Amino acid sequence: MSERIVVVGFGPVAARLVEELLPSVRSGLVQLLVIGQEAEAAYNRVMVAELGVGRTTPEALAMADAADLAADGVDVRLGVKVRRIDRARQQVVLSDGTTPGYDRLVFATGSRPVIPNLTGLNPDPSGPVLPAGVTALRDLRDAAVLREAVAGRKRVVVLGGGVLGLETALAAAEEGAQTTVVHNGPFPLGRNIDRGGGSVLTAGLRAGGVRMAGNARSTGVETAGPGGSFSALLLEDGSAIDGDLLVLSCGVRPRIELAEGCGLPTGSGILVDHHLRTYHEPHMFAIGDCAEVRCPDASCLDCRGATGPSGLVGPGWRQAEWLAEYLVLLASDGQEAADALAPLPKEQPGVVVLKARGINLAVAGDNLADPWDEELLEAGSANGRPRRQISQWADPEHGRYVKMTTRGGVLEGLVSVGMPRTAAELVVLFERAAELPADRSLLLRLDGPDQLDAGGGNSNDPERTVCRCAGVSGAKIEEAVLDGCSSVQEVSKATRAGTGCGGCHEDIKGIIEKHFQAAAA
Amino acid sequence: MSERIVVVGFGPVAARLVEELLPSVRSGLVQLLVIGQEAEAAYNRVMVAELGVGRTTPEALAMADAADLAADGVDVRLGVKVRRIDRARQQVVLSDGTTPGYDRLVFATGSRPVIPNLTGLNPDPSGPVLPAGVTALRDLRDAAVLREAVAGRKRVVVLGGGVLGLETALAAAEEGAQTTVVHNGPFPLGRNIDRGGGSVLTAGLRAGGVRMAGNARSTGVETAGPGGSFSALLLEDGSAIDGDLLVLSCGVRPRIELAEGCGLPTGSGILVDHHLRTYHEPHMFAIGDCAEVRCPDASCLDCRGATGPSGLVGPGWRQAEWLAEYLVLLASDGQEAADALAPLPKEQPGVVVLKARGINLAVAGDNLADPWDEELLEAGSANGRPRRQISQWADPEHGRYVKMTTRGGVLEGLVSVGMPRTAAELVVLFERAAELPADRSLLLRLDGPDQLDAGGGNSNDPERTVCRCAGVSGAKIEEAVLDGCSSVQEVSKATRAGTGCGGCHEDIKGIIEKHFQAAAA
Repeated sequence: MSERIVVVGFGPVAARLVEELLPSVRSGLVQLLVIGQEAEAAYNRVMVAELGVGRTTPEALAMADAADLAADGVDVRLGVKVRRIDRARQQVVLSDGTTPGYDRLVFATGSRPVIPNLTGLNPDPSGPVLPAGVTALRDLRDAAVLREAVAGRKRVVVLGGGVLGLETALAAAEEGAQTTVVHNGPFPLGRNIDRGGGSVLTAGLRAGGVRMAGNARSTGVETAGPGGSFSALLLEDGSAIDGDLLVLSCGVRPRIELAEGCGLPTGSGILVDHHLRTYHEPHMFAIGDCAEVRCPDASCLDCRGATGPSGLVGPGWRQAEWLAEYLVLLASDGQEAADALAPLPKEQPGVVVLKARGINLAVAGDNLADPWDEELLEAGSANGRPRRQISQWADPEHGRYVKMTTRGGVLEGLVSVGMPRTAAELVVLFERAAELPADRSLLLRLDGPDQLDAGGGNSNDPERTVCRCAGVSGAKIEEAVLDGCSSVQEVSKATRAGTGCGGCHEDIKGIIEKHFQAAAA
Repeated sequence: MSERIVVVGFGPVAARLVEELLPSVRSGLVQLLVIGQEAEAAYNRVMVAELGVGRTTPEALAMADAADLAADGVDVRLGVKVRRIDRARQQVVLSDGTTPGYDRLVFATGSRPVIPNLTGLNPDPSGPVLPAGVTALRDLRDAAVLREAVAGRKRVVVLGGGVLGLETALAAAEEGAQTTVVHNGPFPLGRNIDRGGGSVLTAGLRAGGVRMAGNARSTGVETAGPGGSFSALLLEDGSAIDGDLLVLSCGVRPRIELAEGCGLPTGSGILVDHHLRTYHEPHMFAIGDCAEVRCPDASCLDCRGATGPSGLVGPGWRQAEWLAEYLVLLASDGQEAADALAPLPKEQPGVVVLKARGINLAVAGDNLADPWDEELLEAGSANGRPRRQISQWADPEHGRYVKMTTRGGVLEGLVSVGMPRTAAELVVLFERAAELPADRSLLLRLDGPDQLDAGGGNSNDPERTVCRCAGVSGAKIEEAVLDGCSSVQEVSKATRAGTGCGGCHEDIKGIIEKHFQAAAA
């Protein structure tokens, strides 16, 4: 008998799992049920802000076609909620009244936006009811609300200085909205960046037409707009920032209540081991934004310093891919064969890249120390381990800033603003844990005026990862271009590059253009 | 009748004045009396520390020969003090009982070391009696004391973190003494440098074998050494720094008491106008370390922000040269002709260069602001004047640091540590008030690994000033080398380059070597 697999949630990560399992569904090895709460099949949620400012279409965001899947034999149920999970009976209890059973269950419930505790907002995390003119910009309906505000050149207030908030604000400003970012730190991206990078970034955002309100503690929303809609964000100091639309961009929280409800251990996400199995329940798995990989073995070195779900689509896709292989092995060859599969390698620390026209930013690792900060530089350098070292270039007049934090010549942290080629090279060096040149100022030359047409060292290395979400190298993309792909869309279709956050679209365009220039020459 | 000129003081600046007046003495146009308090004729005081560590000889420091001058008709009186000046009678009252008269009198009394207020030291500024083992390193006897300590590899404590103190400490450490610098700021050169430069400099000094005791307030000296000589410097926190010799390097103060004694107005120095004339007394002049050029006209733009004597030998020499011309014109063609002489141009702000093996440092202008210091960056930018901008490279691991403070692209301040070619270029740009390249990181390339043999941009410009004390260009030095000079000494004799602080000796060597390499090729 074929194994019954139930996938709870139908976002980008679930879509990838389904795609990988399709051959086994077609062959009858597994039966697959996918339950999505939204009316639409999976779409690229990362691009909702792009959709909101009118830079892409809902069609381009689609990641699955429910009808196609059904034709292939997948049971897709959209607009249906899972009320609870009955572990004893191995059943899911659905809002449509059915109770399908499972042999394996995969949580792919993702995350939900954090709704800040502001007067005038309903803080109930499981079902927030937001006033008109307030959106968390999470789904296609939210995108439509933003789209309307931007098209009407309305005043958009973005609450939160994280990557998504900044990208949304910049794009909205560029498309004509009067946009203000309100955040409570001295500079945006406070958790990732340092003061220097934050200052240069702030100036860049201002130059991009975004009003920046830092060190601002919001306390409530005023809903004196038409029909009780949003009219102003109220601040602790008694002032108010007027606007027509409030975009909440205050981070996300894993959706774990279904797992909690059936007694599974959770941390910030649903706790799973290196085989993505929930604790004590090897029939159940979790992937993507809802999953926290931290094994029960307290002495596991890989899990030291584990910090919960990354919130990025790339790691989720790698989990989906791995889990599909594992589930297929389980169904075809049994537990022993599946367990012989090498566990998913540990994710490398993430690189934060701002996807924006006119501002280039890359941040990774630990950037807290400044060059004269003896205490932080000495931290962790016991037992002969070398101490941290900092090299820093600051040129705020020209919107440029680079900080390299190294240990033994290898990057532990990097901040780069306004220096795209230097940033690309540093990211490569960071991801490979490669040693920097002794004279770090050599890296600045990549963005020198004489280098604009000369390419930039290793960052032109064909083996470098261009699409970090889908893990696609420059060489793979070049291959696709040689095979006839002549647009980002075609490359995405052929290689998956560019299907995640979209941050590599310019890089892919560059590779395509280079090919056609070379062909024309 | 020939004019009687009396010069009070016989240091390097007086020596230059005498040299320039010699032709007129020989022709009988003027009579010249020079009164020196020390037993020796003028010698290069700036090099006393070099002499103290055994790197030069008293002969090399000599700047005048009393017998030669006497043979030329100059009345040189050494070891004689001026007790007071009788302005009514136009006479100087000397310690040898004579009262020679003058038509013109020139103060060239220089400065004396500041003796800090420490228990165990006699703070009387006019005639301090220092215990054995304590020296202010000002004259040839002080040099001999240091020489003995260094030769005996004794413990030398230098009090003061200024340029002279640091140079002395580094040289003494290199020559084998166990040397400690005690200063009361967070980093040395506190009045000139910023935190970043100060931190990298401190590390460089430590690497050079100097112990650095910063943030240390000294309160007294302990004299428990042999025969009541210095044994330790006592600090406010109750600790002590043991040593065999204490070198006081706490700055200098202009010697103005003779001028004050005869009723001339003084500020920090003897106040003179742009013709170097004392106020209300056009027969009297002051040059060098004792002179403060600040004219009585309160609206004079040149005198705005005048800050007293520079303490550098270069400006004094330029004053001596100018004054000789003025005095000769006075004697030959009268007041009107002399007054037609263009006044001495305003001195450019000084460049501080550390003369040391292994550490390259250049500092000039205002370096207080840091790149994120909005208030300081905005200061002075009213009425459409552009605001200050900062570019900064920090690489403390490799002992490198550069900060460029610009306004409208032109340097207002510079700090460079560990980057000799970048420093040379920045000093040229600073002195010429030339605009920096838009991409300031280009300047860092001058010290890149590929530039070691490639020369460094404008800093190879033949018109750049190599010897800042005597104001000699690279082209002049090259000319002397082409004419046959093959050592620094010969170049100095031919051009005066290298006769001041000695900081350009390596540059002169470089020009000589280049010539001989080119000739050999």
